[in-house]
Amino acid sequence: MTAELTIVGKPMPRVDARDKVTGKAVFGVDVQLPGMLAMKVLGSAYAHAEIVSIDTSRARKLPGVVAVITGDDLPHNVELNFGSRGHSFLAKHKAFFYGQPVAAVAAVDIHTAEEALKYIDVKYRPLPILLDPLEAMKPDAPLIQHMGEGASEMSMHNADVAEDDEDHTEELDKEDIGDSDIREAAELASEAQAEAAPRNVASHIVFKQGDVAKGFAESDVVIENTYRLAQVHQGYLELQNATANWDAVNQQLTLWVSTQAQFYERQHAAEVLGLPIHKVKVITPEVGGGFGAKFGLVAPLVGLMSMKAGRPVQHIYTRHEELQASNPAPASVITIKTGCKKDGTLTAIEAKVVVDTGAYSGSPMSIICIMLAAPYKFPNIFIDGYEVLTNKQSVAAYRAPGGPNSSFAIEQQIDIMANEVGMSALEFRLLNGSEEGYTRPDGTPQPKIGLRAVLNALARHPIWKEPLGPNQGRGLAIGGWGGGRGPASAIVKLEGDGTFEVVVGTVDLTGTNTSFAQIAAEVLGLPISKIHVTRLDTETAPFGPAAGGSQVTYSMGVAVIEAAKDARSQVLKVAAKEFDTTEDDIVLDEVGLRSQSKPDKKLSWPQFQETTSGWTAKYAPVLGRGSVERRKGAPGYAACVADVEVDPLTGYVKILRVVAAQDVGKAINRMSVEGQLQGGTVQGIGLALWEEIMYGADGRVRNASLLDYRKATPRDLPLIDAVIVEQASDDGPFGAKIVGEPSIIPPAGALANAVAAATGKRIFELPLTAERIARAMGRVQEYDAMTTTAPTLTPDPSPIRGEGRGRNGRNGHGRTNGKVKTTNGRASRKATARKAR
Amino acid sequence: MTAELTIVGKPMPRVDARDKVTGKAVFGVDVQLPGMLAMKVLGSAYAHAEIVSIDTSRARKLPGVVAVITGDDLPHNVELNFGSRGHSFLAKHKAFFYGQPVAAVAAVDIHTAEEALKYIDVKYRPLPILLDPLEAMKPDAPLIQHMGEGASEMSMHNADVAEDDEDHTEELDKEDIGDSDIREAAELASEAQAEAAPRNVASHIVFKQGDVAKGFAESDVVIENTYRLAQVHQGYLELQNATANWDAVNQQLTLWVSTQAQFYERQHAAEVLGLPIHKVKVITPEVGGGFGAKFGLVAPLVGLMSMKAGRPVQHIYTRHEELQASNPAPASVITIKTGCKKDGTLTAIEAKVVVDTGAYSGSPMSIICIMLAAPYKFPNIFIDGYEVLTNKQSVAAYRAPGGPNSSFAIEQQIDIMANEVGMSALEFRLLNGSEEGYTRPDGTPQPKIGLRAVLNALARHPIWKEPLGPNQGRGLAIGGWGGGRGPASAIVKLEGDGTFEVVVGTVDLTGTNTSFAQIAAEVLGLPISKIHVTRLDTETAPFGPAAGGSQVTYSMGVAVIEAAKDARSQVLKVAAKEFDTTEDDIVLDEVGLRSQSKPDKKLSWPQFQETTSGWTAKYAPVLGRGSVERRKGAPGYAACVADVEVDPLTGYVKILRVVAAQDVGKAINRMSVEGQLQGGTVQGIGLALWEEIMYGADGRVRNASLLDYRKATPRDLPLIDAVIVEQASDDGPFGAKIVGEPSIIPPAGALANAVAAATGKRIFELPLTAERIARAMGRVQEYDAMTTTAPTLTPDPSPIRGEGRGRNGRNGHGRTNGKVKTTNGRASRKATARKAR
Repeated sequence: MTAELTIVGKPMPRVDARDKVTGKAVFGVDVQLPGMLAMKVLGSAYAHAEIVSIDTSRARKLPGVVAVITGDDLPHNVELNFGSRGHSFLAKHKAFFYGQPVAAVAAVDIHTAEEALKYIDVKYRPLPILLDPLEAMKPDAPLIQHMGEGASEMSMHNADVAEDDEDHTEELDKEDIGDSDIREAAELASEAQAEAAPRNVASHIVFKQGDVAKGFAESDVVIENTYRLAQVHQGYLELQNATANWDAVNQQLTLWVSTQAQFYERQHAAEVLGLPIHKVKVITPEVGGGFGAKFGLVAPLVGLMSMKAGRPVQHIYTRHEELQASNPAPASVITIKTGCKKDGTLTAIEAKVVVDTGAYSGSPMSIICIMLAAPYKFPNIFIDGYEVLTNKQSVAAYRAPGGPNSSFAIEQQIDIMANEVGMSALEFRLLNGSEEGYTRPDGTPQPKIGLRAVLNALARHPIWKEPLGPNQGRGLAIGGWGGGRGPASAIVKLEGDGTFEVVVGTVDLTGTNTSFAQIAAEVLGLPISKIHVTRLDTETAPFGPAAGGSQVTYSMGVAVIEAAKDARSQVLKVAAKEFDTTEDDIVLDEVGLRSQSKPDKKLSWPQFQETTSGWTAKYAPVLGRGSVERRKGAPGYAACVADVEVDPLTGYVKILRVVAAQDVGKAINRMSVEGQLQGGTVQGIGLALWEEIMYGADGRVRNASLLDYRKATPRDLPLIDAVIVEQASDDGPFGAKIVGEPSIIPPAGALANAVAAATGKRIFELPLTAERIARAMGRVQEYDAMTTTAPTLTPDPSPIRGEGRGRNGRNGHGRTNGKVKTTNGRASRKATARKAR
Repeated sequence: MTAELTIVGKPMPRVDARDKVTGKAVFGVDVQLPGMLAMKVLGSAYAHAEIVSIDTSRARKLPGVVAVITGDDLPHNVELNFGSRGHSFLAKHKAFFYGQPVAAVAAVDIHTAEEALKYIDVKYRPLPILLDPLEAMKPDAPLIQHMGEGASEMSMHNADVAEDDEDHTEELDKEDIGDSDIREAAELASEAQAEAAPRNVASHIVFKQGDVAKGFAESDVVIENTYRLAQVHQGYLELQNATANWDAVNQQLTLWVSTQAQFYERQHAAEVLGLPIHKVKVITPEVGGGFGAKFGLVAPLVGLMSMKAGRPVQHIYTRHEELQASNPAPASVITIKTGCKKDGTLTAIEAKVVVDTGAYSGSPMSIICIMLAAPYKFPNIFIDGYEVLTNKQSVAAYRAPGGPNSSFAIEQQIDIMANEVGMSALEFRLLNGSEEGYTRPDGTPQPKIGLRAVLNALARHPIWKEPLGPNQGRGLAIGGWGGGRGPASAIVKLEGDGTFEVVVGTVDLTGTNTSFAQIAAEVLGLPISKIHVTRLDTETAPFGPAAGGSQVTYSMGVAVIEAAKDARSQVLKVAAKEFDTTEDDIVLDEVGLRSQSKPDKKLSWPQFQETTSGWTAKYAPVLGRGSVERRKGAPGYAACVADVEVDPLTGYVKILRVVAAQDVGKAINRMSVEGQLQGGTVQGIGLALWEEIMYGADGRVRNASLLDYRKATPRDLPLIDAVIVEQASDDGPFGAKIVGEPSIIPPAGALANAVAAATGKRIFELPLTAERIARAMGRVQEYDAMTTTAPTLTPDPSPIRGEGRGRNGRNGHGRTNGKVKTTNGRASRKATARKAR
């Protein structure tokens, strides 16, 4: 590899920019097949109900309707697991959340399909609804029972943990967690269950290190609080969609899916539709954002419909369906107690993590538990995690899944403790921040991480010199993310004019193809104009991992390096033979190849191509191949500093300045990496300040449109200053680490800390709405007046969030009152030292 | 590799059979793109004319017409060579054959496009027409002058050899022919030109070995005759077609082409349209036959139209255009003199080969010259070859291009000589047939060939015991073909369920994908159900050679072997590590992998896949790659025995029995190889008995429909008995040699020899029509009466074939008259020994 990089590390416009800007790029909704039908889904009218009967006969008679399917049409050659959302793509026997698909229509056009839904007669027997995970855990709570094929059969995800103790200890990656840890955690979980027997727990985990009681006993400061996050939507622009074409002749299903992971999509569809994997082919058009949500949600139902209808079928979610019945990010309730000595040294962390997974298991509960403590050197750890079922749409990943949940909690705790011992936010984190060799809560060793480098880079940033006025405050938070690192493969082949084609199987969500082009150009020693990157479908592509876990550049980049090296080596071998010289004497450039020592020895690329693929070619075609194992872990650490001004009357938060710093190992494409840091930060700000999927008492989403679901817009935001830190990884391409996810983690904590600094009031619940802040500042009457007179968002009579609303607003810790309080009264305070920054 | 083959060598139904039979297979005409236009071409109204002006203004005004293009629209950034048919996809300045495209229309539908042609006003200045190559060579013949951009500029294919001596010695592959041979041939060519100065010669070559004068002097028998073949069409079922989509945003052209060679198609389109190669992408749908004709004929014009119209464009030839203005196989006039001693030993061959290439150079003239002598051990050779321009559609390859031309001539010569010296056809060929080490006319050594094995296998065939009745005769002929052997590459990747995907870039014309599946299954040690073969487009496929020259299985098969070995080796490495055993302890089967020594060590394919591509995979994905150099030559030799009965009144030939034997090295798929031998034989019979493109004096084809152009049908044919001979090649997959082409070569000679045996009359011109045979048998008056009273095929007043008609019928050599005659009176006869079989 070249010692001095000429292309890697430079900012490069995206190779697909032109297609995206001109509208030429083909997305899922652009897929048109002859005879294609439009599909609409009938969602459950209840958030929890038995499905007594479905009569589709009238709908079938509507002219233009080609097929109507219900749970009875689910494949019979598969044992579907009705405790899994992925298997329950059509409800059978029961519906577990409002809008869950109970029937679907395929018709000649979308209007006919929509009309036909009205003629489907579903008889329900309503069941009690659980929306609050803490209520759901109560010993007397009704059970959310997923049923198998037989009505009496309990699914493996039966939520009654008292009856089924062991299955609920989530299976963890045994490579990452030692067996002994697993056993110990399972034992602890059993103890916990035997004691409390919380209901509706889908999975439970305990992480334990050291002795927290001893840790707290040695502490000078102990802080305990409860932090809540709302369910939020990933907010991709392109709606979920899939198109299916069943080939009855070959018994083969082709799926065009807006997905992050075409190989996963294939495997999943094959599994739930009862097809051999090689009989499913997934083609991924361009994807307009996924952020963790686009993994198998829509394709199986569309595939089943095409199999039943015998024609191609397309299904495109509406924005309403996205917000009512997709798979957003989970709400959580985290009660956390942390301690430190007066010199700032951390002593212990104890936490109870309750993650509201909605109607099906699948939340990042264990990750939230790990990430609560992983960024810091806590010597004693006890974290008790519960994934709890409720009658809401179930959840999936969202950029650093669970990262904001844990960071919002721990970063306020850290801030409060720093204040208590009189250290600056930065100092305290530099003192306690995790580093290589420290053991993470799950027992795995922390690899080399760049947290310290990020904090040091941030310390040098001019933002600290910006003066703060009245009602203004500055907040800092950090966060780290492990990321994916799956095995990967790629092809690099030579085209006739000296263009090298990089062939991959990974979806390009974030500009990864541009990075591949840079990587291949760097390795081949050619300008980027000589590189073209193409993605193939599952049938023909070299395997590439999911575009999730920030792994695409990190993992695939190495496969591209290997493939490009392989191609280059083949080129050099041929050229050395043709020129009768050594391989290191050969120079490649835009025009062709030449010998340095023999000026008359040169070949244009077309001439070279002729020697390997022409009519009279003497040599083998140049076909480079790279296939690499799972990478070593290279977590990405990020930090965010936010300056805010809070309107003392309304609680409105104006963001003044934001700096987002992250260790990316090596920025392959600085432009793209900056964009990632900014994009993640924007999403982190959005969920921190505005975003929340609001449920009525009936389980219906009350703000299921982008008019009512408030996302960050450019008008809300300053230019986010991205600080790129490069502490090379051991195992990534050119030292790169994961990039995409970490930046979403810190903003919530940073903004909460900034609001606390500006107002003297701590807010323990996201989003940090103006109302919550105003109420915390004592503007209770004004807001009560507003909320009683203002109409509700939709004509649903139930309160927007029920009894949970604003609860934390009443028990926050403000640094001005000098007295440490906790949400549950189990307070302790040994130090009152003031912070002075 | 396994010593005992379990899958290779077995008959296997084609993997694409289901798609083809059910109509699911997508051919070029099935390609439908949004906004696609239909294209029609205006062909020249003259076979030779200056194009004075083209007024397209009225056509442009017709509603529904989107674009009209003429030669003025040819790309300006390319220096087109107007002496090349491939560059002259729209005529400019001049038209050289009737129906040559002079303008094209793209319209919203085909009817509008067709209508618009009528409104294009072309003014021509007619030029003298040359249709007979011998006339064209005469010193006073008018010249067919291809013009460059400037009217005064002579093209490099200027036919006046007297003015431009050296350019017309065809460039041969220097690897195959020694430099000294080239030089000598060029000198001889110069001498020949200086002497005769024939006009309209596009290329000229001389092959010389030994001293033919001395050879003939030592001969006991010398025979000289002139043999003629008509121009025939390759007769593929699927009409030539292409669809183009110009992407103005990326300046990229996508072509869907019915082609045999997508990489060639890409390179050619890029060259003539002035685009970088990587900006052209060729996608090949299924191809309904090509036989040598589908190489770049239609795509450039369709591509240019899409670039001009800014919309997708589709062009589908009509059968009329196919027969009038495509690129059929060449007519030829071969005068050949051969000698042998009375013991049958061959002494010398002298030949003048005139190949009628039509309006553009590109005929297999040099191959015809080589193949005239290559099957036999002629110690003295002088072959003088001329490729001559006429005002007909120019020619291209047709299955063993030129093979029938040379075989028809030499195989009758051999038969006559065998008769003369009293040896059987088989004996004479066994005595004189070429073998390894013999030098071919072009100076290259004959590699190991299976001619002798084929003849020996044939000798054992029961056909020789079939009694022959009155008017019945038996004929034998042989023929060999070198075939292609280009470099090739392939990918073999593992799918989730243990299916291995073979990814190639070659077009499957003849069942090659089925052979690849067998090869991969054999190498991997898996049943064929675990193999799937896919072809990719030029952008993404590993390079594969053209499906021409019978090379696909021969060359690509080895690439597939290498890729499958590579994949297997990767699988074994992982399994050995997982099972803690050695690689040779691992067994693969349909279900998965297991250790032979440790019964508890096993993995299903999905489990194995999980270890290489799953979320927690430890190993690299399995991605096998094979890329191989050009193979060694492995010519395929074939022989045909035909029994016929000739109606003594009408000359009608009834085929009684046909045996086709061929050395295929190793039949990878016996079913497919049998089909190839039968298919080639059918085509050889068709061109021998019926096929002929007939030109009127105006250069119009008189039988440009399948009603008038007579092809072989199942009713004409007995079941052809295919005898597969397997003399392993050194360098092909499992010993395979080329297969597709050789079988078309012998039938014409075999049938001519059988007709001679049945009638006592030799026919020296193809096709062996009933009329020619009847006339040779003295039924002149009857046929004269018929032809004068019968209407001509089309209302063209010119005679169907002009003065050339039936000429050879008058000067044939019949074995019954005991006197050797020649066509040109230069006869010699030293032996009168009778043949007795």
